[in-house]
Amino acid sequence: MAEGKRLKELAELVGGFLKGDEATLITGVASLEEAKAGDITFISHRRYKRFLATTGASAIVVSPEVAESVEGKNLIVVENPYLAFAKIMSHLKPVTHPPAGISPEAHIDPSATIGSDVSIQAGVFISKGAKVGNRVVLYSGVYIGDNAEIGDDTVIYSNVSIREESKIGRRVIIHCNSVIGSDGFGYISEGGKHHKIPQVGTVVVEDDVEIGACVTIDRATIGSTVIGKGTKIDNLVQIAHNVRIGENSIVVAQAGVAGSAKIGNRVTLAGQVGVAGHLEITDDCVIGAKSLVSSSVKNKGAYTGYPLLEHKRWLKAQTLVQKLPEIKDKLRELEERLNRLEKK
Amino acid sequence: MAEGKRLKELAELVGGFLKGDEATLITGVASLEEAKAGDITFISHRRYKRFLATTGASAIVVSPEVAESVEGKNLIVVENPYLAFAKIMSHLKPVTHPPAGISPEAHIDPSATIGSDVSIQAGVFISKGAKVGNRVVLYSGVYIGDNAEIGDDTVIYSNVSIREESKIGRRVIIHCNSVIGSDGFGYISEGGKHHKIPQVGTVVVEDDVEIGACVTIDRATIGSTVIGKGTKIDNLVQIAHNVRIGENSIVVAQAGVAGSAKIGNRVTLAGQVGVAGHLEITDDCVIGAKSLVSSSVKNKGAYTGYPLLEHKRWLKAQTLVQKLPEIKDKLRELEERLNRLEKK
Amino acid sequence: MAEGKRLKELAELVGGFLKGDEATLITGVASLEEAKAGDITFISHRRYKRFLATTGASAIVVSPEVAESVEGKNLIVVENPYLAFAKIMSHLKPVTHPPAGISPEAHIDPSATIGSDVSIQAGVFISKGAKVGNRVVLYSGVYIGDNAEIGDDTVIYSNVSIREESKIGRRVIIHCNSVIGSDGFGYISEGGKHHKIPQVGTVVVEDDVEIGACVTIDRATIGSTVIGKGTKIDNLVQIAHNVRIGENSIVVAQAGVAGSAKIGNRVTLAGQVGVAGHLEITDDCVIGAKSLVSSSVKNKGAYTGYPLLEHKRWLKAQTLVQKLPEIKDKLRELEERLNRLEKK
Repeated sequence: MAEGKRLKELAELVGGFLKGDEATLITGVASLEEAKAGDITFISHRRYKRFLATTGASAIVVSPEVAESVEGKNLIVVENPYLAFAKIMSHLKPVTHPPAGISPEAHIDPSATIGSDVSIQAGVFISKGAKVGNRVVLYSGVYIGDNAEIGDDTVIYSNVSIREESKIGRRVIIHCNSVIGSDGFGYISEGGKHHKIPQVGTVVVEDDVEIGACVTIDRATIGSTVIGKGTKIDNLVQIAHNVRIGENSIVVAQAGVAGSAKIGNRVTLAGQVGVAGHLEITDDCVIGAKSLVSSSVKNKGAYTGYPLLEHKRWLKAQTLVQKLPEIKDKLRELEERLNRLEKK
Repeated sequence: MAEGKRLKELAELVGGFLKGDEATLITGVASLEEAKAGDITFISHRRYKRFLATTGASAIVVSPEVAESVEGKNLIVVENPYLAFAKIMSHLKPVTHPPAGISPEAHIDPSATIGSDVSIQAGVFISKGAKVGNRVVLYSGVYIGDNAEIGDDTVIYSNVSIREESKIGRRVIIHCNSVIGSDGFGYISEGGKHHKIPQVGTVVVEDDVEIGACVTIDRATIGSTVIGKGTKIDNLVQIAHNVRIGENSIVVAQAGVAGSAKIGNRVTLAGQVGVAGHLEITDDCVIGAKSLVSSSVKNKGAYTGYPLLEHKRWLKAQTLVQKLPEIKDKLRELEERLNRLEKK
Repeated sequence: MAEGKRLKELAELVGGFLKGDEATLITGVASLEEAKAGDITFISHRRYKRFLATTGASAIVVSPEVAESVEGKNLIVVENPYLAFAKIMSHLKPVTHPPAGISPEAHIDPSATIGSDVSIQAGVFISKGAKVGNRVVLYSGVYIGDNAEIGDDTVIYSNVSIREESKIGRRVIIHCNSVIGSDGFGYISEGGKHHKIPQVGTVVVEDDVEIGACVTIDRATIGSTVIGKGTKIDNLVQIAHNVRIGENSIVVAQAGVAGSAKIGNRVTLAGQVGVAGHLEITDDCVIGAKSLVSSSVKNKGAYTGYPLLEHKRWLKAQTLVQKLPEIKDKLRELEERLNRLEKK
């Protein structure tokens, strides 16, 4: 990054209109408030326009609307400044991984199949029959169980555990210390004791999924636990056995989904949501933070609460919970007035 | 599993009555809907009977009641089909671990004591004075601290950390990336600063306990944190210092138990439950998902809520919370009618 | 510890008044109920005075008030018995770490800078450009990414992952299997698909912070996620990108803080609390267990609830939620009485 890029190149990269000095050298990215000479920044919202006068940035990515009212600054004008800025960030500070190569300090079973141009650090453990695709990156401490499969261009960060038979797609990212394929939590209880039900199924993580740090995804009892293509999972999320999550869904930190629940496409589970087992959430639902979903959600929409309500109804009910002391007082007042009326 | 087992052998294994061709070769297990030729499956509930006509399974484990109405299928008839099926799963697809042997790439302190027939993979670290029992399986990345003890036949999956002095019983299973014996969260605050209280106690995990992935169990300040015999703990659970959990209890994913709480025998804490510190939950209680237990529960039963109520009372109160808008409207209506009456 | 310390030495250590035999040999610490000969214990509260008669402890740390009524026991009398006892614990059972030395089985990039008197176990991985301070302790399985910095006297337990560029201060403690510097959870969604926003910022953990087990702290999108000096974080906590936590705050187990939230100094977030993104919590607030903070908290005080209320108001409202069945009945009664009055 030390060398930087000319502003002209960045404007072309994002298909933006350049206003100002196209030869300006950009060497870094920063927030509006922290940017200094050499940095490029962006404005996500009109209300931050006031920072334009004082920012030290050498260039700013803005919308046409904001561009109109700014003078004397180098601007890249685009319809979606945040998206354009994200592309510029990737260009200026590309994510780098260790160069291709297999550390002699990694433990790789001779029966494993390893693709080309992989990067495997010291301390990686690959069990028998595992298949690792091309250009896969495995950081130190990654454990890959028997016959597990890792698709091309997937990146697995340090200390992740992938249990046997799990199937991880292409271009998947799994962050540090997550666990894929741990046994589902299944017992048959008899006389107060719990007998383990073998968990002989597996986990399928489809292409373009991203999984945060310290996430746990359990293998199915039989069949598969499935995370659909393009779905993104935040840190410390629990996905139980036989759960199916559709495509392009979002599961925010510390949410948990119980066994055999089926989540649709483009669903958002906000932070700390709980979803009970054996139910369905249909496509395009948004479940508010900390909600408990304890029965199926059949119509798309926004829902919140414990128990779950349509979001607007929940807001109204919660406002009234806070007013319960006044409701109680009013009730007593009415009763006293009734008492007086009845005595007459 | 490629070779499979004859149906007669499986019927005998579970003490079931065989209806159909006893020589049928069974090579796999599957769900009713996904089963194909060679698979055995089961029916857990009458409502799935409709799948019987279309399942591709070569045999089905059923209850006597279901068996009556089925013709032309190979059946194993037992009182508890799920339990029998679990036994068949274990028989057809036994859990396999790496063969006995100690990897030269494991780091084992010379002062550690290692039992017979253990399986210790590359990347395991065993500290001084640790004791590892017979037939113990330690996957790659397991860390065993000073003087920790691991009982016979215990299995510890990859990247688990067991801190010094922890005592793990026999036939315990600890899933990937869990932590046993981390310091309890204890400080003395003076003048707005927090001084660490040394956590010099330990953790005792009794026999036949199973611990999920990314679970944290803190060591006691002094004395022991105890997980009782046969208790099963799901993923991402937090057990704080000096907690005592009784025997054969169930702690579902993402539940948390604060310091010095005492949980009885055969208690179920459902998912995302929180238990405050220094309280007791008596034997045979079931605490519903997402509840907060903030005072002791002295009578066995089912409880739910934040704050906690008897489950039935909670259901009633929550139904009324949803009706608060109507209650408010009714209150206003009554007030207006009163106003009119008073004016007369 | 086998040799023990004389009671006189311990009394001097904590500046306490010694009542009894100053030559008593103390070899261990224990709780009041579990203490045996050779142990020292303490009384935290008057209500435990009844145990004094039966404790097997050889000495007890007590307050002046308690000391008055006790005869025939060896006492150390101090104003704050728990604080004094904590000091005695540290003195009798000091936390020990592996002796200084760098294992030849650790992987250390030649470009990394390693301080003096460090202790680095087998299975540690240190990437290029990383800086490790003096007397740092790194347990087995610790991963330190490119250019990450670890301050003097910091202890990092087994299987912790510290991603590239993270800056960890001095005297920091990070417990097993935690993750510092994982990518923030940021996407731009277009047409139902989610495009990853590069997370090019970092994490700064200031001096004297303690971080529990299986904690996740995400790197900033741009700029830094900051954990202020002296703040203590319990197990399984999630800190999202660009969060700033002030000094000497307390974050209890399983709490989660969403992106760009700003938490003040000396704030307590109790267990399982959720804090929404882009808001502020001012200094000296206490947020009760399981609360959801969904708008900024501008005045110091105690708050609880979902949604959040002043703690006292929340208690009142919750009591009334439980009484909703009675409120409903009362409402019906009033209505009937009104009906009768109106008919007259």
